[in-house]
Amino acid sequence: MFHSIDTVGDRWTALLVGALFLGLSRYDDISNVLGIATNILADRLRLLLSAGVIEQRLYSEHPPRHEYHLTSKGLDLFPFMLALHDWGSRWMPPAEGAIVQLRHQACRAPLRSRPLCGSCGEIIDVHDVLVHPQTPTRAKRRRTSRA
Amino acid sequence: MFHSIDTVGDRWTALLVGALFLGLSRYDDISNVLGIATNILADRLRLLLSAGVIEQRLYSEHPPRHEYHLTSKGLDLFPFMLALHDWGSRWMPPAEGAIVQLRHQACRAPLRSRPLCGSCGEIIDVHDVLVHPQTPTRAKRRRTSRA
Repeated sequence: MFHSIDTVGDRWTALLVGALFLGLSRYDDISNVLGIATNILADRLRLLLSAGVIEQRLYSEHPPRHEYHLTSKGLDLFPFMLALHDWGSRWMPPAEGAIVQLRHQACRAPLRSRPLCGSCGEIIDVHDVLVHPQTPTRAKRRRTSRA
Repeated sequence: MFHSIDTVGDRWTALLVGALFLGLSRYDDISNVLGIATNILADRLRLLLSAGVIEQRLYSEHPPRHEYHLTSKGLDLFPFMLALHDWGSRWMPPAEGAIVQLRHQACRAPLRSRPLCGSCGEIIDVHDVLVHPQTPTRAKRRRTSRA
């Protein structure tokens, strides 16, 4: 979990990933909407590119300009981002909470992030959890790549 | 979301909340298990106390010693913590991933964090999401308390 939180836990990184989920993809649009300093934005884009969470796509050749899109690894952060959004909606004062609601397209009801059993599908309460030691697949493996 | 991520998004804060979910509650135990510097641990405990995510309980009077426990607001971070854990298990190399597996006590299968519709209960894909502007309940309300 150390490295998961390093990749996505920083304030600006999480907001940047949130902006990409909402459909922003161009540097100037992201910068304007988030009000993020350009050096911080450039740094977080580099971090997410090197972690394989986003990828660049060329949309202009002269001058060269890139859009940023979530990869499969990035799109798989949806439950994490929704859980944060969901918790903020419940516990933060309105002015500090989310500026959008995320709803189910089919029935328009707000989404919730829920822990489920991967086998029986039951919704899990924190008291139903069994903590099981992870069997290391390679003991003392050193870090090689963040991607 | 700004303030949600400020409360729980920092690396050490998320690890500290994770340790409390795993049942640690005493300063020395948390410090030993996480290998966290005492000034950082004291700072993050203060942050979480002031945000109402944890509470203190006296367990020794001479000298006065406190345990730290998650409040309802803190326990409600379970979907967020599980989503982070879940994502790390899938995308991080084994040595950087989780050291424990979280399983369903009843059937022993690993847990997953899933976005659900709050009304029909359907599991939601990122493409099924409707982004709806949040109606502000109090325009330009100023920050008063983080709790």
